[in-house]
Amino acid sequence: MTDPSPVGEESTPFAEELAEAAALDRADPLAWAREQFHTGAQDPPYLDGNSLGRLPRRSLIRLLQVAEEEWGHGLVRSWSGWMGMPTRVGDRLGEVLLGAGPGQVVVADSTSVNLYKLAAAALDALPERPVVVTDRANFPTDRYLLAGLAADRRLKLRSVDFDEVMGPTPEAVGSAVGPDTALVLLSHVDYRSGALADMAGISGVVRDAGALTVWDLSHSVGAVPITLDQSGADLAAGCTYKYLNAGPGSPAFLYVSRHLQRRLQQPIWGWMGKRDPFAMEEPYSPQEGIGSFLSGTPQILGLALVEEGVELLAELGVERVRAKSLALTDHLVGLVDRTLEPLGFRLATPREGQRRGSQVTLRHPRARELCERLDRSGEVILDFRPPDRVRLGCAAPTTSFTDLVRAVGSLARSAAELVSEDAG
Amino acid sequence: MTDPSPVGEESTPFAEELAEAAALDRADPLAWAREQFHTGAQDPPYLDGNSLGRLPRRSLIRLLQVAEEEWGHGLVRSWSGWMGMPTRVGDRLGEVLLGAGPGQVVVADSTSVNLYKLAAAALDALPERPVVVTDRANFPTDRYLLAGLAADRRLKLRSVDFDEVMGPTPEAVGSAVGPDTALVLLSHVDYRSGALADMAGISGVVRDAGALTVWDLSHSVGAVPITLDQSGADLAAGCTYKYLNAGPGSPAFLYVSRHLQRRLQQPIWGWMGKRDPFAMEEPYSPQEGIGSFLSGTPQILGLALVEEGVELLAELGVERVRAKSLALTDHLVGLVDRTLEPLGFRLATPREGQRRGSQVTLRHPRARELCERLDRSGEVILDFRPPDRVRLGCAAPTTSFTDLVRAVGSLARSAAELVSEDAG
Repeated sequence: MTDPSPVGEESTPFAEELAEAAALDRADPLAWAREQFHTGAQDPPYLDGNSLGRLPRRSLIRLLQVAEEEWGHGLVRSWSGWMGMPTRVGDRLGEVLLGAGPGQVVVADSTSVNLYKLAAAALDALPERPVVVTDRANFPTDRYLLAGLAADRRLKLRSVDFDEVMGPTPEAVGSAVGPDTALVLLSHVDYRSGALADMAGISGVVRDAGALTVWDLSHSVGAVPITLDQSGADLAAGCTYKYLNAGPGSPAFLYVSRHLQRRLQQPIWGWMGKRDPFAMEEPYSPQEGIGSFLSGTPQILGLALVEEGVELLAELGVERVRAKSLALTDHLVGLVDRTLEPLGFRLATPREGQRRGSQVTLRHPRARELCERLDRSGEVILDFRPPDRVRLGCAAPTTSFTDLVRAVGSLARSAAELVSEDAG
Repeated sequence: MTDPSPVGEESTPFAEELAEAAALDRADPLAWAREQFHTGAQDPPYLDGNSLGRLPRRSLIRLLQVAEEEWGHGLVRSWSGWMGMPTRVGDRLGEVLLGAGPGQVVVADSTSVNLYKLAAAALDALPERPVVVTDRANFPTDRYLLAGLAADRRLKLRSVDFDEVMGPTPEAVGSAVGPDTALVLLSHVDYRSGALADMAGISGVVRDAGALTVWDLSHSVGAVPITLDQSGADLAAGCTYKYLNAGPGSPAFLYVSRHLQRRLQQPIWGWMGKRDPFAMEEPYSPQEGIGSFLSGTPQILGLALVEEGVELLAELGVERVRAKSLALTDHLVGLVDRTLEPLGFRLATPREGQRRGSQVTLRHPRARELCERLDRSGEVILDFRPPDRVRLGCAAPTTSFTDLVRAVGSLARSAAELVSEDAG
């Protein structure tokens, strides 16, 4: 068995960093968390938990239990327990991760479908307001959904001004909204820079304009403490396969603030959103409360995985996860400054911890080549976003300080190789 | 170990029926299929596969493989294979079960969301036609979705006249459609009576009126051979957790006939429906072909289970499944006539096999009490639909002739008990 470290033999320049990282790992109060996940000793550093979280061990056990016992043996009888899962898991997700009181969150559908439901419901509630606001660098699905709704309803899309690294501020959003604005759809953490938006500040200026906020929480949920109720957020949705570790394509969630639930009606009327779904002869009349935002049959295996992901984070403690995430990203920023900046990398993530989610983004003119090279060697898993960004996701429960040094070492060596190949 | 048969000791009246059923089971060319599913020797007869299909053994293995190897070990790298699943599994489903050539089916979202996308796209394509047609006894989600779209767009809902047992005919649909009609949404197999609609005949009269058909295949897919292309169907959707055995809340599918793909655009614009989803800077422009009907991130575990369900049915052979299903439902109708009719049960399913899906529905004035009684005893699993229907689903791969006799015996005994309790 050879040393799996990519910065092993030849890396005297990183020996000091590795020793320092090892000491930090030994002192890490969350070091035990890694054992809660399916990992292999030979795994390369995984810095893409911001794209797909790792498999929790408990989730594999639960998956088998739901499949074999509840489905295989219990059969249709298990629906008596399954039926309540979208709201039960939603309530627990709200409590543990969203700062949302009960009765405001459901787990169902995809983030895209949920954002569509929320945005359509908000637009229907404010028909006299012809403008929807987002930032032009927002995650594609968010922009596309708004573009589709805008095309259908002949609305105008307006972009917030924003700094590429720092993201939209309350002031910038304040300048973009007015009496013509129906809704503002923004990401809580920007998928490109990792900037963390001021949810309370922005929700406040939007509310003052008489418009509604829709927050995309995909890149913050499970990594950053969220306080939807306290921040005055109106609507929110997000995915569960990143920092929530619920698996590829696991069901998403949505939040509708209690004060809006009577006022808003979502457009996809299905039997699960109806008052008494088994009174099948009756015309549609929506459930009271958050259940009215459901449409089709709940995805039971996915819901069980979301539940496990939430319970695992409840055990780890979101504040502890955030503290380690900040320690990781701070450390990574320091490593970048010392060792990658001289090689042409530029930090594209806010320097202040409280303005940052759980990723560090770098820009490099040859980022694509670098990432392809690392992809082929398999020595580190990170991701590339065109045209020139490398994203290093620091999922706190499963990322070590040593992982960061190994990743930085790999990037440094690859960048040096590119230069020396050009010279040669 | 006691005899699990509920018609064991005291049931001399059913001894002959049981012997006959045992002989039919021995001669059943699909008897081996039951072993392909997770079943227990002590299981009560399961006549609710029309609601939730059983767990295939291969699906449990695949689930573990996808979770542990692809997600747990492969991590984000596995997306290279996962990304194509909605169309790959869709193509195979189309080929094996729908009579649909490649490039017309995707597996994604729920049936409700898919019907919404299809109906909205059809309505957008025919904006000058203000009427949508369905039958007033159609499955609730179908009716609710149309009601929601009709409310939003100020359309008129019109119902086809139909016989409660036989369902809508081409003649009845012909009388309901006209130059004002945009679309007709019907179920291929009626969830209440089990009536099988004449897809080609109805699609023809709808096409002649210049309207579009949307078929809900939830109660036929996997049980009845379907010929979408040949029948001239325009649009279709359906679920995969009934006769397709893909598990509770597994992802649904949708079909858009090739000739309509350029003309129709669905309203939920998400990154998976876009040409090159990772060119994130570009504005939305839909994929060419059926991929444009995708929205959010695909549900990978669910897709894998759909794939296993399809492959299992491909091995069993849809024609053989249909032949056994007809043998089962014919046999059940005979048993009902001889033994349940005298006890107040009335057949509410077409008598002619070719007009029937894979269930037999009975009506009884005290159906609710009977079903509650059987629910408590646990001796047979079937389902009740208000106000007075008992549905006996005959999922051919896992249902035996003996199961049918045991279920009928239980119903007969319970009905007799009700009468004698009243008398006492």
